[in-house]
Amino acid sequence: MSEIPMPTGANDDPGSATGHPDYRDGVVDLLGVVAYGELAAFGRLAEDAASAPTLPDQVMTAAMATRQFQHFERVRDHLWTFDVDVMDAMEPFHRAFDTYHAQAKAKSWLEALVSTFVGDGFAADFYREIAAYVDPATRELVLSVLTDERETDYIVGRVRQAIADEPAVGGRLALWGRRLVGEALTQAQRVAADRPALTGLLSGSVDRPGLDLAAIGRMLTRLVENHTLRMERLGLNS
Amino acid sequence: MSEIPMPTGANDDPGSATGHPDYRDGVVDLLGVVAYGELAAFGRLAEDAASAPTLPDQVMTAAMATRQFQHFERVRDHLWTFDVDVMDAMEPFHRAFDTYHAQAKAKSWLEALVSTFVGDGFAADFYREIAAYVDPATRELVLSVLTDERETDYIVGRVRQAIADEPAVGGRLALWGRRLVGEALTQAQRVAADRPALTGLLSGSVDRPGLDLAAIGRMLTRLVENHTLRMERLGLNS
Repeated sequence: MSEIPMPTGANDDPGSATGHPDYRDGVVDLLGVVAYGELAAFGRLAEDAASAPTLPDQVMTAAMATRQFQHFERVRDHLWTFDVDVMDAMEPFHRAFDTYHAQAKAKSWLEALVSTFVGDGFAADFYREIAAYVDPATRELVLSVLTDERETDYIVGRVRQAIADEPAVGGRLALWGRRLVGEALTQAQRVAADRPALTGLLSGSVDRPGLDLAAIGRMLTRLVENHTLRMERLGLNS
Repeated sequence: MSEIPMPTGANDDPGSATGHPDYRDGVVDLLGVVAYGELAAFGRLAEDAASAPTLPDQVMTAAMATRQFQHFERVRDHLWTFDVDVMDAMEPFHRAFDTYHAQAKAKSWLEALVSTFVGDGFAADFYREIAAYVDPATRELVLSVLTDERETDYIVGRVRQAIADEPAVGGRLALWGRRLVGEALTQAQRVAADRPALTGLLSGSVDRPGLDLAAIGRMLTRLVENHTLRMERLGLNS
């Protein structure tokens, strides 16, 4: 069902009801997605820090990059409880994230801030949605790598100030936000089609309670609604 | 004596015998150097991570960048005990570090590894040398931001492997190491000339025990000797 080879002699049950191999495949995929997402976000934020307009902006962005890498390390350590090397778990998801970041390459400091805000917010919502369908140890991990509110406050402040200084910026950034979500949904659909174990984990077809297809549809609706609220918080129409 | 304005109403004594304003000027300069050094190292390592040849190399380099930024945060927090904003403390040292990094811009992944090894090693030696001349809380901080041995082991392994694969690489990297130290000493001399409070802290002219000029000469000799040992550890002639 999954291309990830299951390690032999693995510890059977790092959480409750996690022994089923399909569950393990699905949760390893999920952790691989999260790990590579954090690593890719580190890379993008570190690049943004280098082009920050002021030294305080550089420090704030470097701090965000550092937080992402610390999250990556936590996910990597958790994957060891499944006897899986994070490198193997991330492998199937390079292409989707690298394509996303290439297609959604920010051309200005403000676009970079909006990318971080939109991407982190979307990821956090997704983590909260799926937390109910994973074993307790994985749930605790997933909830612990949610975005820090202090960071989003910083971004909201910077973006709103830029729009106040030059209102035309708002229209351009709103367009940018729509493009980001479009590209994210495109990549998410590809991943879902390629990774049946991951889709199975969410849709409840792996001998555990999960979402049915209608519920997945409702989840996507909630994700997009929350994105709209986030754009409004930045002062942008979505 | 120093361009850094002393904050009014500052807490008088964050350590023992730290009340003397010349000492404070010197130690704030020292912490500013360390902070900007860590921040600049974060930037360089983050850039190196983006061009790493393999995903494990990328992760290892991103981990080193993250450690540097965590050190930066610790120094920033310690500066608050002197009522000094890290941004103000770093300001006099941008130019020296930025010039160093511009002059010593690695053109390959291996050069980048050698830069990290040489730069971190040099910094760690310098921190150990000066630890005796600062107040206990600052000493503890300075010793806590020394390089992690696991990271240097990783670099030693990668560089030695590259030389084993292609011996000509050794000669080029040895040249590179010499250039790094030459540029570092040039910048250090500029900083010493510009910042009398910092030089005073080390030379004992600020009402605290310090090094005399002959002792500073011996310290520089030790720093260069240790650099030679580090290059040998990489398998390079210095």
